Amino acid sequence: MIRTGDTICAPASGNGGAIAVIRVSGPQSLKICGKIFFPSDIKLKVEELKGYSIVLGEVRSGDDIVDEVLVSIFRPPHSYTGEESVEISCHASKYIQHKILELLIRNGAVAAQPGEFTQRAFLNGKMDLSQAEAVADLIAAESGKAHKIAINQMRGSFSDEISMLRADLLHFASLIELELDFGEEDIEFADRNKLREIVIKVLSIAKELASSFSLGKAIKYGVPVVITGRTNTGKSTLLNLLLKDEKAIVSEIPGTTRDYIEDTIEINGILYRFIDTAGLRESEDIIENLGIERTYKKISEASIILLVADVNDGLPALDGTLEELRRQQKGSDRSLVILINKTDDDRDNKWEEYIGKPILKDNEHMLFVSAKTGSGIDKLKSKLGELVGYNKVQDESIIITNIRHYEALSRVSESLERVLSGLDKKIPEDLIAIDVHHATHYLGEITGEITTDEILGNIFKNFCIGK
Amino acid sequence: MIRTGDTICAPASGNGGAIAVIRVSGPQSLKICGKIFFPSDIKLKVEELKGYSIVLGEVRSGDDIVDEVLVSIFRPPHSYTGEESVEISCHASKYIQHKILELLIRNGAVAAQPGEFTQRAFLNGKMDLSQAEAVADLIAAESGKAHKIAINQMRGSFSDEISMLRADLLHFASLIELELDFGEEDIEFADRNKLREIVIKVLSIAKELASSFSLGKAIKYGVPVVITGRTNTGKSTLLNLLLKDEKAIVSEIPGTTRDYIEDTIEINGILYRFIDTAGLRESEDIIENLGIERTYKKISEASIILLVADVNDGLPALDGTLEELRRQQKGSDRSLVILINKTDDDRDNKWEEYIGKPILKDNEHMLFVSAKTGSGIDKLKSKLGELVGYNKVQDESIIITNIRHYEALSRVSESLERVLSGLDKKIPEDLIAIDVHHATHYLGEITGEITTDEILGNIFKNFCIGK
Repeated sequence: MIRTGDTICAPASGNGGAIAVIRVSGPQSLKICGKIFFPSDIKLKVEELKGYSIVLGEVRSGDDIVDEVLVSIFRPPHSYTGEESVEISCHASKYIQHKILELLIRNGAVAAQPGEFTQRAFLNGKMDLSQAEAVADLIAAESGKAHKIAINQMRGSFSDEISMLRADLLHFASLIELELDFGEEDIEFADRNKLREIVIKVLSIAKELASSFSLGKAIKYGVPVVITGRTNTGKSTLLNLLLKDEKAIVSEIPGTTRDYIEDTIEINGILYRFIDTAGLRESEDIIENLGIERTYKKISEASIILLVADVNDGLPALDGTLEELRRQQKGSDRSLVILINKTDDDRDNKWEEYIGKPILKDNEHMLFVSAKTGSGIDKLKSKLGELVGYNKVQDESIIITNIRHYEALSRVSESLERVLSGLDKKIPEDLIAIDVHHATHYLGEITGEITTDEILGNIFKNFCIGK
Repeated sequence: MIRTGDTICAPASGNGGAIAVIRVSGPQSLKICGKIFFPSDIKLKVEELKGYSIVLGEVRSGDDIVDEVLVSIFRPPHSYTGEESVEISCHASKYIQHKILELLIRNGAVAAQPGEFTQRAFLNGKMDLSQAEAVADLIAAESGKAHKIAINQMRGSFSDEISMLRADLLHFASLIELELDFGEEDIEFADRNKLREIVIKVLSIAKELASSFSLGKAIKYGVPVVITGRTNTGKSTLLNLLLKDEKAIVSEIPGTTRDYIEDTIEINGILYRFIDTAGLRESEDIIENLGIERTYKKISEASIILLVADVNDGLPALDGTLEELRRQQKGSDRSLVILINKTDDDRDNKWEEYIGKPILKDNEHMLFVSAKTGSGIDKLKSKLGELVGYNKVQDESIIITNIRHYEALSRVSESLERVLSGLDKKIPEDLIAIDVHHATHYLGEITGEITTDEILGNIFKNFCIGK
C-alpha cells in the first residue's frame, strides 16, 4: 500500500559503529523533529532552518536528555525522497535509536516499510524504477564490476537505453495508428521497410541486453568455481596465492553450516567463489570417495571447475577423475579448466606428454601453472575472466543483472518477433499495433512508466528498512 | 602514540543498513576531500564551504564514479574533535566504504586508531577524560539507567563533582603550602579544624562515589539472576510473563556456546540477565543432578538467586535445595529470593505454613506470586530493584560505572585518610602536603587534568574505530 501523506521514520545505518543515522521523510518531518529536538543555539528553530544545513542539539524526552545529536535538514524537492526530510545523526546505541524512533512515532511519524524512502523517491520522480532497483544493488555490490554496473544503472544509463527503445517503438506505433485512423482509405503512411528497420534495431538491442543477463548474474552474485584434484597437487597453495594477490572477502553467513571451504576472491573486478570440495576430506580418489553427493551438488552449481593435477603425475593419473567430471559436465555449459601445477618442479619433463595430445573436448581448457612460483597465474586469471565472458563486452556496455528486467526484455523480444512476422505476412495493422503496444508496455515496466502496486510491492519488499 | 597533525579517517557507522558515514578529521580534511569529492553544483568548492553545511556530489576515482554522497562540513572548533572535519554519507556498501577510505588515504589521510576522534576531542579540550569515557558507555548502554548514567557523565555531571572536590583539596594544599613557605616562623595560616572539615567532606564524597560502583557495574553490565527450582514449579511461565511485560533484548554473542538459557529483560530501567540453569536439563533434584559444576558456576557469578517453588508442594519439599543453596551462599553477598508460585491454585491452603515460620536467614526473601495471573509480579520487580540497590539512591545521584574511576577514588580515599591521621598526629605539614597532593593527583587522573600516554592508551584502545 502506498501512502505519501505520512511522515515516515526508520534507522538508516547498520548495527554497531560509533554513529547511527535515523531518517525522517514526509510533510511533517520538521514539525515532528521540532517537538523532540532542541538546538544548542536556542535562537535557532528547526522549522525555520534552510535545506542542506546541520544543527547541533539535544533530543529530549520530557526532561530527560536522550542524546546529543546533529540534525541535517532537507527541503523539498532537494532530498533523497523529494520530500521534506531530516536525518538525525546520534550515538550508535540501540537504546538511543529505539528511544528516538519511539519519540518520533509518538509525535506523529510512522515506522517506514522496507524500501519506503526509495519508493517515495520513485513516486516523486527523483528516479525511475530501474534506478531505484540499482540502489539496492549498489548497497549489495561486493566487487568492482558489480559496483560499476549498479552505479551506472542508478545513474540512469540503462533507463536511457530503455527509454530510447521505447521512444522508437512509440514512434512506430504512432505511424501505424495513423494508418488505422485512416483505415478505410487504405493509405500507407509508413514505409514498411523503415518500420522493419526500427523493429529489427529495437529487437536486436533488447536481445543483446537480455543476453547480458547470464554475465550480469555472475557479476552480481559472484562466479562459483569448484576446485578439485588429488591430495598434494597444490590446491591450497594455489588458493592461498590467489588470496594473497587479491582482495579476500570473508563472508560470514549466519545460520548456515559451512560443510565446505569457500574463499571469495575478487579478480579483475569480478567476484569468484572458490569452493574447495576436496577440503571435505582428502582422499586418493577425490570424486568417488568423498561426500559424493555434496561434491556433485557443488559441481552442478558451479560455473567453472578447476581440476588441479601435478605435472609429475602424468596424464593417465587424470583419467578416472576426468572421465567422471565429463560425465557430470554432460548437457551443462560449465567450463572445465585442467590446471597442470608444479611446473617449477617438472622432474620428468612430462610437459610434452600434455602438449602433444589433443585431449581437450569442448569447453575444456588446459593451463600450466606453478602455484609455488606464481608462474602462469596471470594466465589463469585472464582465463577465468574469459570464461565468465566479461572480456567479450565493452567496458561501457550495459549489462543487466535483474531477473525482472530479463523477463521484461524477453517479452519485448517475443512481441517484436511477432511484429516482424506480422509485417512479413502483411497482417492487418491493428493486430501489429497490439504487439507493438505489448513491447512498449514491457519496456515501460522496466523503468516504471507503467507499473502496478504488485510490481512496486515485489521490488521494495526486498529493500532494507531505512532505504 | 598521539599524533594531531595528521588528518585521520575511518568508517563511523555500523555494518549493514542503507547509509554509511565516513568520518574525516584533521587540518587537511577539506583539502583531501576536495580531491576526491565533486559537488553536483559545479560552482561550489568544498574548501570554501562554511561549517554546518551539507553538499551533494560524487566521489570519483579518476573517471570512475564511486558513489553519490552527501558531505557535511565542520569548521574548527565547531566539530566533534574540535578540528576541521568532514563526514561523508555514502551508500552502505562495504565496497564503497573501502573505496572511499582508500581514496582518502591515497590523498594524504591516515587510517584512524580506535577512539582517535574522541581522543582528539579530549586533547582539544572539547571534553574531559571521564566525558570521553562516557561516550563509549553511552554507545554500549542497553538499559534506561545505564543510558542515563552515561549521558549524565558525558554531559559533565561527574566531572563537575570531581573538579569541585579537587578545587577544595587544592585550596587546602595552598594553605598548607603557605605555611611551609613560612616554615621557619612556625605560623599556622590554616585553622586545623577547618582543614579537617574540608578533608572529611571530600573523603566522604569520594567514598560515597566509590561505593556506588557495585550498583554502577550492575546497571552497566546487567544484573545476573539465576532462576532455579523443580520441574513444573512455573519457572518458564514466570520468565515469559516478565518477557512479555518488559522489553526483551535478544543478545547474540558470537563465538560463545550458550549452554544455558539467558533472557535479558529491562525492568524499571535496569537490565537483568535471567539465567535458567534448570533449562540445562529438567530433573527432580535440581542442584544435585544437573550439570552441577556449571550450575554452581552460574550461581557464583549471579547477584540474585530466584528459587521458584510450587505453593502446593509445601515447605519440606524445599529443604534439600535450600540447604544446598545456603551452602553456596556462604561468604557471598548474593541475595536469595524464594518465590512461592501458583498462589492462584493454592489447593491445600499451605500459605500459612510459609507465613507462620521464620525460615528466612540473612539476605533471604520470600515472595508469593502467581505467574499465571500475574499477581505478586510487581512486588517481585520492586524487590529486584531493591536488591540491586537502585532505590536507595536518588535519581540524580552520580553513580560510577568505570573501574578506573573506582580505583582512582579508592586511592583518593586512602590518601585522605592518611591526611586525617596526619592531622590528628600533628605530623609535619610537608608530609601532609604529599598525601594531599596524591589525592588531587588521582582526582585529576579521573578527569584527565593529569594524564599519561599509558592512561590514554588504555582508555581509547577499547573504543571502536570511527569513534
